[in-house]
Amino acid sequence: MADSINRRWLLAQRPSGNLKDSDFELVREAIPTPGAGEFVVKVTHLSFDPTQRGWLAADSYLPAVKIGEVVRAGGAGEVVASNNPKFPVGAKVQGAFGWQDYCLTDGGGFWPCATLHPGMSAEHALGIFGTTGLTAYFGLRDVGQPKTGDVVLISGAAGATGSVVGQIAKAMGCTAIGIAGGKTKCDWVVETAGFDACIDYKSEPVAKRIKELAPKGVNVVFENVGGDILDAALANLAQRARVVLCGGISSYNAASAAEIQGLKNYMALTVTRSRMEGFIVLDYAPRFAEGVKALADWMAAGAIKSIEDVQEGLENAPATLRRLFEGKNFGKQLLRL
Amino acid sequence: MADSINRRWLLAQRPSGNLKDSDFELVREAIPTPGAGEFVVKVTHLSFDPTQRGWLAADSYLPAVKIGEVVRAGGAGEVVASNNPKFPVGAKVQGAFGWQDYCLTDGGGFWPCATLHPGMSAEHALGIFGTTGLTAYFGLRDVGQPKTGDVVLISGAAGATGSVVGQIAKAMGCTAIGIAGGKTKCDWVVETAGFDACIDYKSEPVAKRIKELAPKGVNVVFENVGGDILDAALANLAQRARVVLCGGISSYNAASAAEIQGLKNYMALTVTRSRMEGFIVLDYAPRFAEGVKALADWMAAGAIKSIEDVQEGLENAPATLRRLFEGKNFGKQLLRL
Repeated sequence: MADSINRRWLLAQRPSGNLKDSDFELVREAIPTPGAGEFVVKVTHLSFDPTQRGWLAADSYLPAVKIGEVVRAGGAGEVVASNNPKFPVGAKVQGAFGWQDYCLTDGGGFWPCATLHPGMSAEHALGIFGTTGLTAYFGLRDVGQPKTGDVVLISGAAGATGSVVGQIAKAMGCTAIGIAGGKTKCDWVVETAGFDACIDYKSEPVAKRIKELAPKGVNVVFENVGGDILDAALANLAQRARVVLCGGISSYNAASAAEIQGLKNYMALTVTRSRMEGFIVLDYAPRFAEGVKALADWMAAGAIKSIEDVQEGLENAPATLRRLFEGKNFGKQLLRL
Repeated sequence: MADSINRRWLLAQRPSGNLKDSDFELVREAIPTPGAGEFVVKVTHLSFDPTQRGWLAADSYLPAVKIGEVVRAGGAGEVVASNNPKFPVGAKVQGAFGWQDYCLTDGGGFWPCATLHPGMSAEHALGIFGTTGLTAYFGLRDVGQPKTGDVVLISGAAGATGSVVGQIAKAMGCTAIGIAGGKTKCDWVVETAGFDACIDYKSEPVAKRIKELAPKGVNVVFENVGGDILDAALANLAQRARVVLCGGISSYNAASAAEIQGLKNYMALTVTRSRMEGFIVLDYAPRFAEGVKALADWMAAGAIKSIEDVQEGLENAPATLRRLFEGKNFGKQLLRL
């Protein structure tokens, strides 16, 4: 171990509204020593996902990060000290390592540590083969249940999950229509991620554009944004449509319920006999191997690709998380330490 | 035919906001004479349902009632003139007869005419064995999928459909919690309709009371109201809950989308892995006989009962429809002509 210091970002206070630097505190501690059954991972990459904002706010499908705890995040790295024969020194691993240079762990918990497949990069492990790609796969396939020829509408289309959902939809024989903010992003969604079309919510009337692009309505909505964007989608449902509620990034920074933009068109679910359903990707853990294989097969066939947006330096962790809510990332947001 | 005049309520203009007398026009015409294959029904009872408000406003799952057309409504009556051997003079029938003394029909269309089962009263045919009871049966059973021991939350619990849903829930071994407006209604929901409890949304904090009555969350929500009431339910979902979107009476009189109370807690569907699903009872027409049999068996066993609220006189049709939106009806709203 070349370094002698473990930098750690702790949660200093519950964020209210937009994330601020003062919500976090960077501390310097000694590198931990593993006890019986434990090992130490030198973290090389961190994953950033909108759901992390929720973990800082309140108990939900996972308990909230406590004040004074290291900020929770998925990551990848290498074992540098070990009393655990399953994870020997030199092993490349992934797990919920958090915003720190070194993570002490026994490998268990709600998000168990796993050894990377031989030849799999940390970027792919955290992105296309991590919760990002698996969220896209299980959310679209199991909850959205697209059929060949269906129109799939994807909000947050330039984001990590959204950009994979559109690629999977295309691979499954569907039409993929994205929604993203700004011409640069929309061009990227079509040209790089390969969607059929992308609506710029910053300059175009979203509901009207959906109607033009999908005059018979959309069969599947993969929703990452919520609020007005979801209302525009609800106004354009085909009969018996499936709305996959993956996230609602438009509301994550709301300081109170009063700030949340309410959904007005939910009764469209009745008129079109449609359903709106939420899911948590961790529930699919027993089937992750199936998802990784499907994604790897599509990648090998050239049908989908992994697209990463890599920032540098642990000191930039809070700013990197903010990028998601400022609409700055293209594809999967990672931080290399 | 003793009368020589057919009074008919026509739609005079598209209603905006609350229903007004001037939205309708009462005309007097000659009683029609049946052509080939046609017959004339003397209407004895009309059914009133919240969805009729939607038919007056815009095309939805059925085309809107046109300006100048008779107001669409289900009804029951007796054939008084006929050139149709399936429906001879004297037959007791039900169908979409509309707000008029006499209906000329060939018995077909999206809502075909049907002969009443022998011994079935018009009140039961339009209520418990009509779309009201069938909406409760298929919505709860097929969409809500309650399991024994589940907690079922029902808004509009004193209404026609809601009061049957709670009775079916009890018959299926569930706990039935109602939501209604005012102490008189809530007492009726518990004492007459037999729910386990009823929350008064006019005097009680709904979300807090749901939490007290169902500390582990509600497994099924049968939603007739929408808006704030639905938000309170969403805040109290158990894991993998089912929200049955039957109606949203709180929004039916909204003159524009801006007046609709938006849903704020829809992301609870994600955190609890739940779904919200709409349905249209007419889709279940091929299975109506199954529903009628199930309801009749429960009635025979004393597990459920038909509860009707009968007004008098065709001249009171607009006022009777308004009763639904003024929260005046207890059970199924009917009008006897």
